[in-house]
Amino acid sequence: MKIFIQRNALLSAIQHVQKAVTSKTTIPVLSGIKLSVDRNGLRMTATDLEIGIETFVPAYMDDEEIVKVEEEGSIVLPARYFSEIIRKLPYQQIELEVKENYLTTICGGTSEFNLLGLDAEEFPRLPQVMGDRIFSISSDVFKEMIRQTVFATSTEEIRPILTGVVLSLKDGLLRLVATDSHRLAQREETVEAPADLTLSNVIIPGKSLNELGRLLPDDDQLVDIVVANNQILIKMENTQFYSRLIDGQYPDTSRLFPTTFKTSILVNTKELYNAIERASLIARENNNNIVRFMITPEQIKITSTSADVGKVTETFIPKEVKGEELLLAFNAKYIMDALRVFDAEEILVEFTGSMSPFILKIPGETKIMQLVLPIRMN
Amino acid sequence: MKIFIQRNALLSAIQHVQKAVTSKTTIPVLSGIKLSVDRNGLRMTATDLEIGIETFVPAYMDDEEIVKVEEEGSIVLPARYFSEIIRKLPYQQIELEVKENYLTTICGGTSEFNLLGLDAEEFPRLPQVMGDRIFSISSDVFKEMIRQTVFATSTEEIRPILTGVVLSLKDGLLRLVATDSHRLAQREETVEAPADLTLSNVIIPGKSLNELGRLLPDDDQLVDIVVANNQILIKMENTQFYSRLIDGQYPDTSRLFPTTFKTSILVNTKELYNAIERASLIARENNNNIVRFMITPEQIKITSTSADVGKVTETFIPKEVKGEELLLAFNAKYIMDALRVFDAEEILVEFTGSMSPFILKIPGETKIMQLVLPIRMN
Repeated sequence: MKIFIQRNALLSAIQHVQKAVTSKTTIPVLSGIKLSVDRNGLRMTATDLEIGIETFVPAYMDDEEIVKVEEEGSIVLPARYFSEIIRKLPYQQIELEVKENYLTTICGGTSEFNLLGLDAEEFPRLPQVMGDRIFSISSDVFKEMIRQTVFATSTEEIRPILTGVVLSLKDGLLRLVATDSHRLAQREETVEAPADLTLSNVIIPGKSLNELGRLLPDDDQLVDIVVANNQILIKMENTQFYSRLIDGQYPDTSRLFPTTFKTSILVNTKELYNAIERASLIARENNNNIVRFMITPEQIKITSTSADVGKVTETFIPKEVKGEELLLAFNAKYIMDALRVFDAEEILVEFTGSMSPFILKIPGETKIMQLVLPIRMN
Repeated sequence: MKIFIQRNALLSAIQHVQKAVTSKTTIPVLSGIKLSVDRNGLRMTATDLEIGIETFVPAYMDDEEIVKVEEEGSIVLPARYFSEIIRKLPYQQIELEVKENYLTTICGGTSEFNLLGLDAEEFPRLPQVMGDRIFSISSDVFKEMIRQTVFATSTEEIRPILTGVVLSLKDGLLRLVATDSHRLAQREETVEAPADLTLSNVIIPGKSLNELGRLLPDDDQLVDIVVANNQILIKMENTQFYSRLIDGQYPDTSRLFPTTFKTSILVNTKELYNAIERASLIARENNNNIVRFMITPEQIKITSTSADVGKVTETFIPKEVKGEELLLAFNAKYIMDALRVFDAEEILVEFTGSMSPFILKIPGETKIMQLVLPIRMN
């Protein structure tokens, strides 16, 4: 294998696939990036066996030569060294050549590195994800949907299912839901899908989605999503992302949303966030991060007390209060997490009672729904 | 104690003194900031018993009222909570009032915090540093002198003296020197001092100087430096910084500098840094971070080898080479640390031999001198 490649294209490809490299592996080849060159260009692959990322640097882009292929072939290079070397080489073009015993020469300007590589045959093949269960979505929208749900997944491995985000699709409406059983985040969006395509119980690991979120470009290019039995494939331009799915039956969350409300408040999102954040300065000292909410027609008193530190009282004036007076307590972190992913200036919070889940949403919309369970007050 | 104070002035004062607060203390009062109010304004103090910082917020600045004093008094507030609360309060004016049992009310806008304080009488008094051993220096110059030396202090407590920077003054020339016995950094500057003032063996802990470096403003205001037997005091505008000194006799470093040279190279500082940094990508894998330098009249070959990773060769073209050919090895980190604090575009490196210390300096200047000891080659 021998190529000359534009440094920026090489670096960008490394940064793409590197998200799938794990440092915690006992299989040496997995700490590497696989490079394979044919006359069309350079393909790079990395996997931690949970996710896999493959990206392609074409020989030509817009008539410009990106990769000059002198000899086809393949190699696995240690990801950390390879990426740091390319990052620190300030030259426009890099030469890569595999010599005897997988020793690979990386040359740029007056620098020459000889890196010990590994046999590309030892690198695991990424799964073949095929089938007709496929739909398309704008990259930036999918990225946003991930951001608005993945934070609510559980980090506890006791119920592995809750560490994932469940995806479903019906009548062209895509839904992502995550819950750790204390709070729930749901996001819906209409997508381009065959009319008869129905998906349910597709549980994608939260960790995979965090990586995918970093990989998805912030533009409206369409990405294809292919769902197979135990794998999901997201196809971007020149880059493909694979993740295994979580086995099992995700709980039915549709009935958790209350339909009638006793109290509702309309608030400025940022102002409520700031008030709860200040209250949580004191609240987080006790482990549960408990903040109390006392809703009256004129105002909301947000309070928190810690025996060791002191007490805080925030007087918050909502835009509108409807319904009964209410006193309840909740974990400040859950509300702050939920408020953070709303891009709307105003949100509506609907309460059913002191011990029933309450809903945060944008007035007049159901695209984003956040559910939080109050904490029993002593 | 009761005051109304401008939030930005309060926050800035907290951030100043907070550098002296330690979280690792068994003495509760030391995790706090002492506030004392008289009709002139608010004085804040913090100390970890190694360093102490005191700052003063005057009642008036340029005829503007900064602190409105309603009642004099004093209190100690927990530093972490106090600073976070003020940071998160977006109101222009803050009210501070000490009530019964040291309970302190902090009000801003519609927020009210009640923080449990401590008796100010329990707070240690900062030392009285007095005497006529005093000189003045421009704040930004002293900050630069610290930056250019403190990195070379030892972090090993086996020889406590080497964890400090030694200050000396003679004939108006101030000198700071630090060494960990593998490399040495020296910086000199003429300062405003009484003609007959001579200082020697004033050993300031490196940790103290790191904090002081962060505190010194980046402008040319004169700061006064007062040296007492076991304390040093740095007086800035409205802020005073105290540090204890390290006991003992600092080794005489003046004779370490070779006076004759066999080889010298003139190089672009940034280019040499980049070449050594790339070599160190491979070098750091072996614990000693060893890089080899082969100097010939035309070029320098910088190489490093790691059995597990591979090899790197940098071909470096210096601006000028004088004297004999030379082969030597050194710790890449030491050279990179030294090169990083030179603001000059070109530097001169003077070698005496493969096993003698070599000097990095700015051509024609002796203000900054960096000494590095080579490593024996196998």
